[in-house]
Amino acid sequence: MTESLDAIFSSKYLTAWMPMLYVAWADGELSDDEIAQIKSKAKLLPENDRAILETWLNPQDPPSTSQLLKLARELKARSKSLSNAERLGLAELGAALAGDDYSKAGLAELEVSLGLAGDSVADIIQDARHDRERSGESANFDVKAMKTVLDGPYAELKHEVLSFLQGESFTYDYTKSTPQAREQVLEWLKEIAGHGLGTYAYPGVTSESDMGAFVTIFETLASFDLSLVVKFGVQFGLFGGSIYHLGSPEQRQQYLPDVAAGRLLGCFAMSELGHGSNVRDLETTARYEPETDSFIVNTPRREARKEWIGNAALHGTLATVFAQLEIGDESYGVHALLVPIRDENGKPMPGIRIEDCGEKMGLHGVDNGIIYFDQVRVPRGNLLSRYAQVDDKGVYHTEIPSPGRRFFTMIGTLVGGRIAVGAAGNTAAKTALDIAIKYSDQRRQFGPENAPEVPILDYRTHKLRLLPRLAKTYAMTFAGHDLVQKYLEDQDKEDKREIEALAAAIKVAATWHATDTIQASREACGGQGYLRVNRFASLKEDSDIFTTFEGDNTVLSLLVAKSLLTNFQSQFAEERVVGVARFIGKMAQTAVSQLNPVVTRQADQTHLRSREFFMAALKYREDDLVFSAVNRLRGRMAKMNAFDAFDSMADHLVAAAHAYTDRVVSEAFARAVDRVEDLALKAELERLLTLYALNTIHEDSGWFQEQGYISGPKARAIREQVNLLCDEIRPQAVYLVDALSPG
Amino acid sequence: MTESLDAIFSSKYLTAWMPMLYVAWADGELSDDEIAQIKSKAKLLPENDRAILETWLNPQDPPSTSQLLKLARELKARSKSLSNAERLGLAELGAALAGDDYSKAGLAELEVSLGLAGDSVADIIQDARHDRERSGESANFDVKAMKTVLDGPYAELKHEVLSFLQGESFTYDYTKSTPQAREQVLEWLKEIAGHGLGTYAYPGVTSESDMGAFVTIFETLASFDLSLVVKFGVQFGLFGGSIYHLGSPEQRQQYLPDVAAGRLLGCFAMSELGHGSNVRDLETTARYEPETDSFIVNTPRREARKEWIGNAALHGTLATVFAQLEIGDESYGVHALLVPIRDENGKPMPGIRIEDCGEKMGLHGVDNGIIYFDQVRVPRGNLLSRYAQVDDKGVYHTEIPSPGRRFFTMIGTLVGGRIAVGAAGNTAAKTALDIAIKYSDQRRQFGPENAPEVPILDYRTHKLRLLPRLAKTYAMTFAGHDLVQKYLEDQDKEDKREIEALAAAIKVAATWHATDTIQASREACGGQGYLRVNRFASLKEDSDIFTTFEGDNTVLSLLVAKSLLTNFQSQFAEERVVGVARFIGKMAQTAVSQLNPVVTRQADQTHLRSREFFMAALKYREDDLVFSAVNRLRGRMAKMNAFDAFDSMADHLVAAAHAYTDRVVSEAFARAVDRVEDLALKAELERLLTLYALNTIHEDSGWFQEQGYISGPKARAIREQVNLLCDEIRPQAVYLVDALSPG
Repeated sequence: MTESLDAIFSSKYLTAWMPMLYVAWADGELSDDEIAQIKSKAKLLPENDRAILETWLNPQDPPSTSQLLKLARELKARSKSLSNAERLGLAELGAALAGDDYSKAGLAELEVSLGLAGDSVADIIQDARHDRERSGESANFDVKAMKTVLDGPYAELKHEVLSFLQGESFTYDYTKSTPQAREQVLEWLKEIAGHGLGTYAYPGVTSESDMGAFVTIFETLASFDLSLVVKFGVQFGLFGGSIYHLGSPEQRQQYLPDVAAGRLLGCFAMSELGHGSNVRDLETTARYEPETDSFIVNTPRREARKEWIGNAALHGTLATVFAQLEIGDESYGVHALLVPIRDENGKPMPGIRIEDCGEKMGLHGVDNGIIYFDQVRVPRGNLLSRYAQVDDKGVYHTEIPSPGRRFFTMIGTLVGGRIAVGAAGNTAAKTALDIAIKYSDQRRQFGPENAPEVPILDYRTHKLRLLPRLAKTYAMTFAGHDLVQKYLEDQDKEDKREIEALAAAIKVAATWHATDTIQASREACGGQGYLRVNRFASLKEDSDIFTTFEGDNTVLSLLVAKSLLTNFQSQFAEERVVGVARFIGKMAQTAVSQLNPVVTRQADQTHLRSREFFMAALKYREDDLVFSAVNRLRGRMAKMNAFDAFDSMADHLVAAAHAYTDRVVSEAFARAVDRVEDLALKAELERLLTLYALNTIHEDSGWFQEQGYISGPKARAIREQVNLLCDEIRPQAVYLVDALSPG
Repeated sequence: MTESLDAIFSSKYLTAWMPMLYVAWADGELSDDEIAQIKSKAKLLPENDRAILETWLNPQDPPSTSQLLKLARELKARSKSLSNAERLGLAELGAALAGDDYSKAGLAELEVSLGLAGDSVADIIQDARHDRERSGESANFDVKAMKTVLDGPYAELKHEVLSFLQGESFTYDYTKSTPQAREQVLEWLKEIAGHGLGTYAYPGVTSESDMGAFVTIFETLASFDLSLVVKFGVQFGLFGGSIYHLGSPEQRQQYLPDVAAGRLLGCFAMSELGHGSNVRDLETTARYEPETDSFIVNTPRREARKEWIGNAALHGTLATVFAQLEIGDESYGVHALLVPIRDENGKPMPGIRIEDCGEKMGLHGVDNGIIYFDQVRVPRGNLLSRYAQVDDKGVYHTEIPSPGRRFFTMIGTLVGGRIAVGAAGNTAAKTALDIAIKYSDQRRQFGPENAPEVPILDYRTHKLRLLPRLAKTYAMTFAGHDLVQKYLEDQDKEDKREIEALAAAIKVAATWHATDTIQASREACGGQGYLRVNRFASLKEDSDIFTTFEGDNTVLSLLVAKSLLTNFQSQFAEERVVGVARFIGKMAQTAVSQLNPVVTRQADQTHLRSREFFMAALKYREDDLVFSAVNRLRGRMAKMNAFDAFDSMADHLVAAAHAYTDRVVSEAFARAVDRVEDLALKAELERLLTLYALNTIHEDSGWFQEQGYISGPKARAIREQVNLLCDEIRPQAVYLVDALSPG
């Protein structure tokens, strides 16, 4: 529409029509029927005014946005003189603007017939009230009670650690040089050990507690300094843990009290320069020498040097070394044995060469080193001998004859480290969100005209950046609790593959979530996020390697996938044909209940926010990806060797692993919500669970549509729900992050 | 199938059937018809053997994967004794294994009728040959010629800068303390200025060249050290650039020769603690004082202090200060004026207080500072007076009477900085990929049984991690060239909004791409990526703020969106009804040609790899998102004020902005490919363009399916093409990154 607005503005009669015209058009398109209704009322107008009005009623040529804007501005200006403008309906306002009520009757009818009776132009005619300050909105729930839910079963210990960290010596100083940081972290470690916190690592030996306690200490320390956490993990988790898990009862008794007390500092010497992920092909050898009844530990070539070994560059005196065990002409695969690497003065032992790994991106307080062994002799008794022993005749004994199973059993005992690293990653995400959400709630920038600037957390883009990540951090917290629980339950199971896969899955999800959340939080704080004092620098630098160490995340994802495939197949091997038939039947049932056109298109809020929808969707994705992976793999194995077949569909397998993780995490979250009795907490948690699940589905909306699981309009409706949930959560965001805050 | 395989292994007759059975089943499902054919041939077997064979022919109970594997192992073991096993067909191999050829005729017939005549079990029976070393695969194209294409029109200058950086003093040392790093970077800056590289910043004043030369120097320096780049940018781009763009001809002549030579070091004092993105509401004031014919510059409160100012903490002596210009009771909005902040001894001038911003995440060589002004008097002539002047009677003059337009014109001149930062971000991505791809090509881990370990870049997951990012880095390089070209073309246009939007879009895309690519590259290098000596640490830390400074990426994305909406509307305002009708017509035509069921389902490789498909898809997405944004916005403005309406759909707007960017980038890439004449280069580049475009579509596959633009099977086919393209590009990856490598 190209006509000027002045004709309207200058006609007394048309002035009365302004509010109606504005809302009618700005609300969207006008139908022919609606236009006809308006025209019939317009007949009451003088000829000239009617002609002008009709230029506004051509559906082929609607008013432009700028015309509507101009109209809005004029409306606003004219309404200022009216004392009660914002409380008037459209017809009333029009009449008031026109200065009499001759036209009120006709417009009032129109108002009803166009369905605009409830509308007003209040938003337009008054300055927008941006009363968004948090002070105006109080918490919907008891923050303390929420904290208790999030703290989980080891809350008491967590608070003990937190108050211990309040001690004078635990002051974080990011300006320290690397040598200073290493000394500082060593001091902290000793203080922690002195406080008895190291003893929790060895239930049944130095402690009456369980592994959950150790993980709790670990993740709580992560709220303070990640170098300290890693040093703590190396000393008590990896080094001590290797003796605890791989040593005989005597070896445990011999070493662990000193390890727990921090009197014996040690290393976990597994990774080599040439072999990080592929531990099975390590090259360091430990050859039995009958003449001296001892082992000769040796680094055969440069690539076989031990690399990245924490505690090695400076402080460790004993190392658990992983090496290929050789007796005579036989090789028995990777075994662990204790090798003294330094004397009491800190000097390397004969045959041991140690180098510093050099400056790292972060974790400056951890002294990572490189170790070479030049034919180093250690007594036979230094072989950690829980699963395999060599007797004084040089004969090898083991309860696990299969070399493959033996290897995986030994390596499998390290699962505790993965659980702890995942938990620490999640702590780092909590710290980052705590800073970013509170900053964004206070920081204001831009705003509507003539109104105060708006807190940046009110912006749609900012909410989308932080609140789904907040929901996921809640989810990962509950998944972490369940993981520890499962670990404790499975402790006496011989087959640990399930807990290993679960721990790997959670480690992957939590550490990538940490990297992603810290980055998003830094960006959400703009320049302030770049200042070292605001902590993102160390959070980023220190946690960056979490996605690599304790198992590279991609390698671990494939390990999870492998375990899913094995489970799937062995389930059917056990149940035979009946099992497959039952599975196919279940899939068919799913197809009927979830894949019928009514459901794939159902997009109302009640449905989308129901667990019936979103939990089933996450489960369906996992089942489908695993089932199709099994089939594809079977087909490919005909054409190529197993290795290539597996790799050729690795993207599919990783997707299956992540689908499994998302399902497991959402179930842990749902169980946690179900356990809560307080209705206010329950409602907040259910909303976060819903946001977590819908956002997860939204992020993989391409896949769900590919499968015909959701229609296009449903995909859009899910995106809209993610937005709505963010809007709803926004006023509670500061309280929610307060409850989550690790400190 | 639960029967043991031993019955087959021990029957001489069935031995002959092993290869056939294996390939038939492992290839997928057997149809009833195929089973009937096999059964008919099986009649030739003795009764007992036939019964065993038939247990293999139940489609309801196919052999399990582990049975197939066992069969494969056995086949492999038995084939070892045959000298020519890998060259035999299935029937021949079977006969050879059975030790005679009695069954050969029947099996050979079966081989043909089952469509297996071409197949062999070579992959199974011989150890997989993993001859994947790069030495085996030479470059498909002339790497030097590719480098020339990528270098673009300023190749000569680029090489001059690179050889200058070979100079002795340009040694990168990551162990320096912050004070040392700052001194080092200052020395480098002076050396660069001494070499005359600063003069390129001011075409027409200190140089005969154009802005493309300046961007080239900037992005080339980024291959060396990002602190240096930022310091260089602050001094020549921001500080000098503000005089160049906002100063009068006299002011340019007065200052720029000294600035270019590094004799006059300065700051660009725009950001305040309280106002970063929202420059229009800065609070620093510059009040005209008639008595002294000068301006009084003042910081009214703590939040109004200048923050993040590069060169301020130590080295700058003069600052371009952005302040609200006040004369009498009138405020004229933000203007820039020159304020001396230090004397020749480095002491702050009276009324100036300077603080150090403190330690940052990275860019340690840049001395960012905070400046407070306490009623600082500067002569009237210090107002940068290209667009506005104040005469000696205190009367304000300007050629741009609209305060809004005046503000945006002044700010708009800063577009050069965004172009440069985007280019530097892309350089950082190149450095990261160069390291990661070359490392991954050499690093081996895991592998098939009894074969050497495999270079990790051969893994599907690793290819997917690095190669689409390689393709995008190519794309961003060409988009950068075109951006500079467009900037030069538009220099004399009065309306600079188009180039401003384009520069913002490319800055956003390039800097987020850098953050993302550096992270992926670090992770792709595992632990090695974490060592400071391997450069990822500084790349990450230094480039992290690129997504924030020179305009926060989210704010800029919204600015791009705003410009798209304005263009869309003003296009129609100009062309009136005809324009809209034409647009609707075009959309309808698109619907016919691209949205008909044949095309939305078309999934063959030729179609998917055709520009006709992927360029149209990217264009369609942009058009649709912009068009629907205009409509939605129009609707929402009825219900709320413009600010809230805009924010309520900010996710949609950001998506539209990114769709615009992807389309523009792909078009720049396509034009670059079209310009290349060498067929080998052209083919490689077209493949990278295809990967870039298909991966972009794949990443937003949810949206394309929502719109009905692609069907589910087509979405899957696109994912498959991304995989195939990665496989094809893999052997050339090292050469491609060599050509791209910034150094």
